[in-house]
Amino acid sequence: MAPQAVPDTALQPAEQSAAQQQTVTRYRAGQPANSVQDWLAQEVPVAMVYNGISHAVMMASPTDLDDFGRGFSLAEGIVDHAGQIYDLDIKHTEEGIALHITIASAAFDRLKQKRRSLTGRTGCGVCGTESLAMLAQQVPPPVQGADVSLQALLQALQALPEQQSINQLTGGLHAAAFADAAGNLLLVREDVGRHNALDKLIGALQSLPADIRSQGMVLMTSRASYELIVKTCRAGIPTLACVSAPTTLAVQLAQQSGLCLVGFARGQACVVYANAERFCD
Amino acid sequence: MAPQAVPDTALQPAEQSAAQQQTVTRYRAGQPANSVQDWLAQEVPVAMVYNGISHAVMMASPTDLDDFGRGFSLAEGIVDHAGQIYDLDIKHTEEGIALHITIASAAFDRLKQKRRSLTGRTGCGVCGTESLAMLAQQVPPPVQGADVSLQALLQALQALPEQQSINQLTGGLHAAAFADAAGNLLLVREDVGRHNALDKLIGALQSLPADIRSQGMVLMTSRASYELIVKTCRAGIPTLACVSAPTTLAVQLAQQSGLCLVGFARGQACVVYANAERFCD
Repeated sequence: MAPQAVPDTALQPAEQSAAQQQTVTRYRAGQPANSVQDWLAQEVPVAMVYNGISHAVMMASPTDLDDFGRGFSLAEGIVDHAGQIYDLDIKHTEEGIALHITIASAAFDRLKQKRRSLTGRTGCGVCGTESLAMLAQQVPPPVQGADVSLQALLQALQALPEQQSINQLTGGLHAAAFADAAGNLLLVREDVGRHNALDKLIGALQSLPADIRSQGMVLMTSRASYELIVKTCRAGIPTLACVSAPTTLAVQLAQQSGLCLVGFARGQACVVYANAERFCD
Repeated sequence: MAPQAVPDTALQPAEQSAAQQQTVTRYRAGQPANSVQDWLAQEVPVAMVYNGISHAVMMASPTDLDDFGRGFSLAEGIVDHAGQIYDLDIKHTEEGIALHITIASAAFDRLKQKRRSLTGRTGCGVCGTESLAMLAQQVPPPVQGADVSLQALLQALQALPEQQSINQLTGGLHAAAFADAAGNLLLVREDVGRHNALDKLIGALQSLPADIRSQGMVLMTSRASYELIVKTCRAGIPTLACVSAPTTLAVQLAQQSGLCLVGFARGQACVVYANAERFCD
């Protein structure tokens, strides 16, 4: 949350690098201005470098970087499965952090091919897409899963805030979490960017058995937009629940791919937007 | 907000294209499931095409597209000033919307040069940047402005929610707004993406006299990250107030460029993170 002094010693190493203290000035109508120490979320450029070639830079929270590199590679379809990632090396430079990722030559050849077919820079929001025709080809793979229970979802949701340790300190981070079919919160990852948070989660998910992944759900503290649907489907997770609204395109893609899409998942309620037949109360 | 039936006739044209009705299923613990009609935010691919060459695709709310094209061109530094944009033509295709923008040859030559220097795709979050070295060169231009008063900020903040017409319907949009030095809310633009909302606002701002722009403030319903600082500075607006937290990098860039950066601007209070000497209560 906003300004609240926390002793340095209370911080774990991950939070130390994800948050930084700074003097800020608080104002409140009718009260004198007040200079205090506050914790701010760090935002650091992180470059994804594949087999020696810099591919993309994201502004990210500098935590769980191994998960981030692996998850980005999977969620963006750069590799088909985690086994195509041979090595990941984290290098801190003056300008930011470079994740040097060694991938299988088949995946690297495809990436080079795709890069050659592009003529230049692309915009935010739709990674690697510079024309409408290219975007139309990006259809998420189908996912299959068991039923989702309202009770399990609400249980996982309730457990989430206290696991958002960096957000508790700074108020500036999104979380992506994974819960099993019974609603047990198994993994939580945080980042200043919601796409990054999901990439980190997808990277971390590789440590779980495939049958748990394919029966569980992703929870996100954000809205549900196009890219989150694509990433979740690529990770093979059959359910995505977000605390805020989905867009029309997100709903359409979720319907096509079989993803159970839940929005406005808050308190004791939620709204199901796609594949409601898999949802049970 | 979440599900609330609104008669079709109550909608203005912009909201009609920005929101779509759909049947959804509401769940609440201890109550039976309930199928209702709900309004969802539209998310449409919008391509920026400069002098015939497709440059970038953003997922956006299909409203204020003229503002979007002009503001993106300015905020991304593709043109130096609005006079370098000769024409903007909106074309609806099956795959999405293409904004055909004709820009001055000097700006187009520079864009081609920049595109040639890139070897391929780039990531979300840092438009057009594929290496850490490139990012380090992106320093926002300095801005100058008059003092900002807490009272003017709080007045503008209070007026904002009722101007967020599409968000009131769907709950899924960010807003970027401009208020003058006295706190009068002059312009509001909405989008599913916060960067797009700011681009639209910057496009719309070109209709205001330069002396009002240079004394006013941008308000955003989001966190303050790196790119919002860069875009606001490029638009020459000296103050940015966000309802949520800034990142460390946002604060650092704001300090360097002279931008007065305000966060957690909510209710009757706010926190000033950079250039607090320009803020007065």
